[in-house]
Amino acid sequence: MVETASQMGTGTGGTRNIAGTNHPLIELEREIASLHGKEAALIFTSGYVSNQTGIATIARLLPHCLLLSDALNHNSMIEGARQSGAERKIWRHNDIGHLEQLLRAAEPNRPKLILCESLYSMDGDVAPLHQICDLAERYGAMTYVDEVHAVSMYGPHGGGIPEREGVMDRIDILEGTLAKAFGCLGGYIAANANVIDPVRSYAPGFIFTTALPPPVCAAATAAIRHLKSSQLERDRHHDRAARLKSVLHAARLPVMPSETHIVPVHVGDPEKCKLVSDLLLWKHDIYIQPINYPTVPRGLERLRITPSPHHSDELIDRLASALVGVWDQLDLPLRETVCGEPDGMLIVPV
Amino acid sequence: MVETASQMGTGTGGTRNIAGTNHPLIELEREIASLHGKEAALIFTSGYVSNQTGIATIARLLPHCLLLSDALNHNSMIEGARQSGAERKIWRHNDIGHLEQLLRAAEPNRPKLILCESLYSMDGDVAPLHQICDLAERYGAMTYVDEVHAVSMYGPHGGGIPEREGVMDRIDILEGTLAKAFGCLGGYIAANANVIDPVRSYAPGFIFTTALPPPVCAAATAAIRHLKSSQLERDRHHDRAARLKSVLHAARLPVMPSETHIVPVHVGDPEKCKLVSDLLLWKHDIYIQPINYPTVPRGLERLRITPSPHHSDELIDRLASALVGVWDQLDLPLRETVCGEPDGMLIVPV
Repeated sequence: MVETASQMGTGTGGTRNIAGTNHPLIELEREIASLHGKEAALIFTSGYVSNQTGIATIARLLPHCLLLSDALNHNSMIEGARQSGAERKIWRHNDIGHLEQLLRAAEPNRPKLILCESLYSMDGDVAPLHQICDLAERYGAMTYVDEVHAVSMYGPHGGGIPEREGVMDRIDILEGTLAKAFGCLGGYIAANANVIDPVRSYAPGFIFTTALPPPVCAAATAAIRHLKSSQLERDRHHDRAARLKSVLHAARLPVMPSETHIVPVHVGDPEKCKLVSDLLLWKHDIYIQPINYPTVPRGLERLRITPSPHHSDELIDRLASALVGVWDQLDLPLRETVCGEPDGMLIVPV
Repeated sequence: MVETASQMGTGTGGTRNIAGTNHPLIELEREIASLHGKEAALIFTSGYVSNQTGIATIARLLPHCLLLSDALNHNSMIEGARQSGAERKIWRHNDIGHLEQLLRAAEPNRPKLILCESLYSMDGDVAPLHQICDLAERYGAMTYVDEVHAVSMYGPHGGGIPEREGVMDRIDILEGTLAKAFGCLGGYIAANANVIDPVRSYAPGFIFTTALPPPVCAAATAAIRHLKSSQLERDRHHDRAARLKSVLHAARLPVMPSETHIVPVHVGDPEKCKLVSDLLLWKHDIYIQPINYPTVPRGLERLRITPSPHHSDELIDRLASALVGVWDQLDLPLRETVCGEPDGMLIVPV
């Protein structure tokens, strides 16, 4: 007779410490540890929970810990930092000088944890990870990097921006999701055993909740393994993002600068931003959500487009054409043509 | 071109407010609302997250809210109450007199939220819900009841202990899980729209996380619908629990009193408790987890058995026989035979 929290169904059966740990889950944790070149990994219900209970637990376990958090970190990281009860200092987004100033001001022997994302999802910009690791080593700080928008999509094996930059082994804790590019559900942290073991033993959001079901774990493992060896999807993804940017740019739409697959298009007004989205859906069968304050600062309201490897040339051209039509209808400003710009690239009817 | 957080996979695609809301999810929310006789329901990643972000958000939205929490509430409720920042008073477990004392001492016009579970999973005891609702009405408090260990298993349609007791319509917020008896994944709160709508708009653990995948939602809806109309599984479940209790009792094993399907067997020593569990697994192929401090008070260490509808007479007899063998091996005390007790029921070889 097996003790299981799943008394009447086919569910996953209880918390990890009761009957929830299953073979596919362990296999998935090993696969993730290997993806990030770490000794161990720990799976949570979601990326949100990974950050929330992961950061809160690590910070609580480091006596008198100081958290140094990038100003644009995700809500789940902010909640984790808050719930830890530890002192927090916010450094200006991607501002290495400011981070160093805060590190220099802190007691040298105090435990410190630097929190940042590798790829910020609203602007598509990337953290200066090498410089952050340099500072961490100089000032004796640990590093925690959220890889949610990059894992599987960057790096020769999908290890994300840190793998691409060759900095993965200098980062103490990597956090990621299985619910975005890996197409499944759940989140994780990967680190060495001296970090993972205490989190496993002390994180309430890990201990007191139901484990991921075996089929979800098996699917995630298959997705990670596939994208470890196949470059096809990454190449196609980056190619689609580049083409989208180029086509929108040629149509003189106000594409905001982005180094990644995230393609923000500036609107600058919350009501018009919502209206653009509505018109795209109603008139053109295209669904792009408006991103307004408080998600982005006032004045920087935008559409945020994330093309997939499956978006064809035809779909991209149709989007550009629809956007130009909506821009025209709402009297939104197009970019001015700068002398010498390749206007011949304008392949979209305006 | 659809904005989706799932760029390269077959995942669920983003938060509820971006591209995550899907038809099976809405259908599931309607099914849950109907199960509990409420206007609306809201799905979260897990039961843990439902309690944590649900309670924290409701308490934050009620100005100067006082939380009144049963001493044995689950960690997820405690975390939600803590994270709200609201003042908390803990009432002694199931002690209506103590709850009334705390309610009487509070400012009459202050918003109050009573937090309890309908069925406590370690002792299998049940909250006096009618009396709690009487007090709530008398002192103008709202009620929040965690139904995680009861939903689908009690009540003529599986609405849980509140449905069985005819008190469902007197409870403001019912919280439950899809990951235990419904055999899926995820958690929820059900309440009237004036509660659900603000939580939908303000709960960070709802807003900034990935939605449940459509197949998980569809499976949960099917499970709820089936158990709404089928009494077979509930009858069989209760019959199995009753038979298990009677067989263990007849074998003079120290079954702790329980009104429900939860069957705790007292050991009273953490090392022996672990050893009982190990011997059951190694020698008898039976997996029952030891429950030690801090999950239960010191001295009340136990095995906690939750039979399912699928446990046959033969399996139950084999468990009793194995337990008696282990009890004997470890020199653990059996209950003394009380005069007049039906010793003839002793069907297990000792």
